[in-house]
Amino acid sequence: MQIAILLYDQVTALDAVGPYEVLSRFPGARTVFVGEKLGEVRTDIGTLGMTVDATLDEVLRPDVVLVPGGIGQQQHMLDGQVHEWLRAVDEHTTWTTSICTGSLILAAAGLLTGRRATSHWVRRDDLARYGAVPMHRRVVFDGKYVTGGGVSAGIDMALTLVDLMGGSELAQAIQCGIEYDPHPPYDAGAPDKVDPAIVAQLLTYKDVIF
Amino acid sequence: MQIAILLYDQVTALDAVGPYEVLSRFPGARTVFVGEKLGEVRTDIGTLGMTVDATLDEVLRPDVVLVPGGIGQQQHMLDGQVHEWLRAVDEHTTWTTSICTGSLILAAAGLLTGRRATSHWVRRDDLARYGAVPMHRRVVFDGKYVTGGGVSAGIDMALTLVDLMGGSELAQAIQCGIEYDPHPPYDAGAPDKVDPAIVAQLLTYKDVIF
Repeated sequence: MQIAILLYDQVTALDAVGPYEVLSRFPGARTVFVGEKLGEVRTDIGTLGMTVDATLDEVLRPDVVLVPGGIGQQQHMLDGQVHEWLRAVDEHTTWTTSICTGSLILAAAGLLTGRRATSHWVRRDDLARYGAVPMHRRVVFDGKYVTGGGVSAGIDMALTLVDLMGGSELAQAIQCGIEYDPHPPYDAGAPDKVDPAIVAQLLTYKDVIF
Repeated sequence: MQIAILLYDQVTALDAVGPYEVLSRFPGARTVFVGEKLGEVRTDIGTLGMTVDATLDEVLRPDVVLVPGGIGQQQHMLDGQVHEWLRAVDEHTTWTTSICTGSLILAAAGLLTGRRATSHWVRRDDLARYGAVPMHRRVVFDGKYVTGGGVSAGIDMALTLVDLMGGSELAQAIQCGIEYDPHPPYDAGAPDKVDPAIVAQLLTYKDVIF
């Protein structure tokens, strides 16, 4: 099983690495980080470089494709090489997936038209502009299209996918292997769980970091 | 505030990227990925390259140092450049931290002697061999030494650190910003939460992946 994870400049690192850490442990999985150009991309914060190991035209039949989000997503909303590649590989994928604002790229490429999908909560409703049906959920399945919420949601999305593909024992083994027993200091991971002032503050960064 | 994250070949990506995604959002933080040599390291699974942007001798006074784990940790258990650097920077850090088996490197460098610490559950008890006091907890504080459990525990560790350094509003804002509202399909993130057969299976991989 080949899993292709798209990288581009200003991607959010955890969007890609969360699911990578889960899906790469699936028996027989071969993960490949793909992009328009070989070599390094820099993440949204700018202080981490990650390597594109294969160009888009070198990865033609991935079984799973995953599109992470990040502020750089805004550079991939017009049709072009990335959209063409997504539409082409989607014809053969078992699962076409995204995390965070990666779903906006999938939607702009025409792959989520009329489908239920999610995104980072700050950008979720923007999906409607591109023909998708925004759902206020952390992981949304619509046929083979699987979209996850913001940044860290990729871990849950990937574990859910492993559960479907390989069964509950495998999903639990991988979860236990990466010791994913979350205990954040606060229950503050969604906008309805924090003070409205925090939500308002985060929304002021909407065009800068999401 | 400078945050130095150590990279080395066969590091576990999420060990580094989980805390990076949280700590880099701390106002005024400058994160730098450091290593013995500039350029790319490959992660434990081998299919992701991450970039070392500064050599150890270029980062002499980080405020926070973070040592991730991964199978490559086993190559850094003998004294040498990495241990010397850790001891030198530790003299000035506000926080000296690790995730997963990174704590074994800190302990081998002599920085956790007599201190309470944690690690990946598969390797936790090994800490005693290097003079630390193993604790079966996800995040352990002992003075300025903060150690996290396996792989994904770095997100919780980093949020706890942000809470201490910047207060609860900031910790909640960052948590909400990365939408860390965990909903894994199973409650299976620790060895006492899964079938003993799964634990036994994971332990057979002990020397290969942990």
